[in-house]
Amino acid sequence: MVKFTKIIQDCKIRAIVKYDGHRYSVPKTLRMKIRPMTIANAFYAQSGGATAVINSSACGLIETARQRRDRIHTVYAGHNGIIGALKEALIDTQTLSSDTIAALNNRPGCAFGSCRYKLKPFHEDERPYRRLIEVFDAHHIRYFFYNGGNDSQDTTHKIAEVSQTLGYPLTCIGIPKTIDNDLPHTDFTPGYPSAAKYIAIAIKEAAIDLMSMCASSTQIFILEVMGRHTGWLAAAAGLAQQHPNDAPHIILFPERPFEMEPFLARVKHCVSTHGCCVIAVAEGICRADGRFIHHSSNLVDVFGHEALGGVAPVLAHLIKKHLGYRYHWAVCDYLQRAARHIASATDVTLAYQLGAAAIDAALAGHSSVMMTIERHALAPEWRIGTAPLNHIANVEKPLPAEYIREDGFGITPACRDYLLPLIQGEAYPPYENGLPHYAPLTFQCVEKKLTTEFDCCVAA
Amino acid sequence: MVKFTKIIQDCKIRAIVKYDGHRYSVPKTLRMKIRPMTIANAFYAQSGGATAVINSSACGLIETARQRRDRIHTVYAGHNGIIGALKEALIDTQTLSSDTIAALNNRPGCAFGSCRYKLKPFHEDERPYRRLIEVFDAHHIRYFFYNGGNDSQDTTHKIAEVSQTLGYPLTCIGIPKTIDNDLPHTDFTPGYPSAAKYIAIAIKEAAIDLMSMCASSTQIFILEVMGRHTGWLAAAAGLAQQHPNDAPHIILFPERPFEMEPFLARVKHCVSTHGCCVIAVAEGICRADGRFIHHSSNLVDVFGHEALGGVAPVLAHLIKKHLGYRYHWAVCDYLQRAARHIASATDVTLAYQLGAAAIDAALAGHSSVMMTIERHALAPEWRIGTAPLNHIANVEKPLPAEYIREDGFGITPACRDYLLPLIQGEAYPPYENGLPHYAPLTFQCVEKKLTTEFDCCVAA
Repeated sequence: MVKFTKIIQDCKIRAIVKYDGHRYSVPKTLRMKIRPMTIANAFYAQSGGATAVINSSACGLIETARQRRDRIHTVYAGHNGIIGALKEALIDTQTLSSDTIAALNNRPGCAFGSCRYKLKPFHEDERPYRRLIEVFDAHHIRYFFYNGGNDSQDTTHKIAEVSQTLGYPLTCIGIPKTIDNDLPHTDFTPGYPSAAKYIAIAIKEAAIDLMSMCASSTQIFILEVMGRHTGWLAAAAGLAQQHPNDAPHIILFPERPFEMEPFLARVKHCVSTHGCCVIAVAEGICRADGRFIHHSSNLVDVFGHEALGGVAPVLAHLIKKHLGYRYHWAVCDYLQRAARHIASATDVTLAYQLGAAAIDAALAGHSSVMMTIERHALAPEWRIGTAPLNHIANVEKPLPAEYIREDGFGITPACRDYLLPLIQGEAYPPYENGLPHYAPLTFQCVEKKLTTEFDCCVAA
Repeated sequence: MVKFTKIIQDCKIRAIVKYDGHRYSVPKTLRMKIRPMTIANAFYAQSGGATAVINSSACGLIETARQRRDRIHTVYAGHNGIIGALKEALIDTQTLSSDTIAALNNRPGCAFGSCRYKLKPFHEDERPYRRLIEVFDAHHIRYFFYNGGNDSQDTTHKIAEVSQTLGYPLTCIGIPKTIDNDLPHTDFTPGYPSAAKYIAIAIKEAAIDLMSMCASSTQIFILEVMGRHTGWLAAAAGLAQQHPNDAPHIILFPERPFEMEPFLARVKHCVSTHGCCVIAVAEGICRADGRFIHHSSNLVDVFGHEALGGVAPVLAHLIKKHLGYRYHWAVCDYLQRAARHIASATDVTLAYQLGAAAIDAALAGHSSVMMTIERHALAPEWRIGTAPLNHIANVEKPLPAEYIREDGFGITPACRDYLLPLIQGEAYPPYENGLPHYAPLTFQCVEKKLTTEFDCCVAA
């Protein structure tokens, strides 16, 4: 719910408004010069870790805005996320050809640059908010679209509230994106399905390799995937298990405390049953006391080593030490979130549609919302909806308990039913000379209209 | 050159022959019952680490043999490489449908199972050789095809020599396979181009991701690839560098000693120039004294840790310690050699052709040779040839010095000219329900004809 804002004092130069239990002085000059606009500009930016399909949302948003030149004159993309707005580093997407915009649909990374920048609450630091409105006002920006994960939805929510408080008419819409899939009120977050597809394929292929020669060579393969707090990505490995004996034989979720003995017993059972054991592990698995395994000196002391990072090598050494099996391990890291070469077509399509629908929603008068994906009850089909940002900001959607098998080492049929539709279709990028053609986006920022600089306190 | 063999004594039951400076007793019963065959069987097996395309060679070989039923009655595949022959675990490929055989062309891993099993010289242990001939004789096998890397070519070479010594007429042909690309006398080894393509794509995608947000987040990304002794796989990362400023900014080769100070200076230079630094590193990089970096206690002591394996985290911590940059790292491990989902079409085609040509070569009377790939001088086209096994066994082809840039941190244009044709074309596998359809190969071994067992001394 947007918190109540009340103008409690009004004088010639500044008005005093109350918001979130605090009082703020708002320059009346700003309030006075703002008039309703029939045509305004939009600001779009990308935030947080990249995904394979975030640029598809950018593509959908810009292409749709171009069809509505009667309402949106141009979309300014922020160079490096919200920092682009603060530093007045704006890219006029109208200067980019339609082919360039269309090519965004095939490109991983964040084409306009991203950032990790968390806005403090308004009462702690008003400067960035006032600066944003100053920049937006200078460039006639009345639409704010922010494409990101939890922190970015929180940013969008804060900007929506504060712009209202300060009397600046700004339509604020969040567009979800995160491979972590941990945003509430949306069936999934774009980026997750492609990472899930990558992980399922990677572990399926590695398992086939391992099984080829486990009789006389390596018996253990461990794949470490991302997920500090939630097991959504680890769960995706379970898609490779199309039959009960298929790999992965063990999945370790951050939602379940890691216990060494049941784990080792399970590994031993798998090797004696299948001749090998394929394990998918989330980077964030913890002991019962909450300590991460890869920081757990107790565990690591077992072999007199301290890990340099990565939970996969820790588990590998644990298995070697106690069971003597030969192992291999891999850590996907960025590869899983950048793998546009094997992106899910479902993911690409929905990411595009979210960006497109964000323009429609804004022009229809929605604000302070995040675009959402709603799954039809009976078919693997989706429609685009919205949810209030204050229901989303700072809420983390965990992997439901009913998606984790009772023994804690695999996914349930319900989880598979949820996941399977997400990875359907292969959205191959174009290739040139044997490699994906990810057209580099070259751009110049528009001329600055403000004479002041803003220090974001971010390392260069 | 096949060493001179001379029958130096002949009695009723056994003949004494001389080979490689040693004298051997050969059962005359065996020699006597062997008669020229117009139709015989073939043995085919897969050896060593899997690749994305080794089954394409199997496919080419079996499909071609089926067209020559006038000469080859059936191809018996060894279950788990040469161990399948020793244990008389033979798969009659004639019992597999043509669809099943065709599907091999799309499947990673070693479909018939592989092994790591090195034959000792005949004079050290005669048992396995005598057993092989006993099994081959029992199943009318007169053609031996072994699909593998350096060790496997050595095995083929030994079997060719010994079978001749013992008077057993066996046509022996090696089919190259290894992602290491370190076999001599062939333009490349099947498996390498697909691994190279995977690595180039992986580092290209991860670099685009990194560059998206290096201004406010991670500046360093390190990708660890295989290659204990040679830098062929590390060099493949250089394909992603299509323009001088592109990633990878640094490649570390096992052929060049790792020196900390020039490395750190280079990293610093890259970050100040590009805002980030993308590094590809071969697992086997060494200090000047020959010690592996990831076993180098001196280096690791710098941060008071001992690595649990993996050179990428060691380099990451080194950079963090000395330069303070934020890092991410990934280790490809099996993923790079199993990635059939993005196999090079060139690789798949040539792997198939090698298998097919092996049958033709055998029927044309070649033996003690490895099939080779010869590059046309002017075009990225190849033809299949042969080279004597004694020129190949135990010879490792290093990355040529002229393929490594003078500063040791990248590849030369000559290297790029060599590599680029190899990764052309995308041989996508069929998909089913969002995942590659890698048809599981189910088979039964044929009934044993021998009453004796053979202990390979390999862990179950």
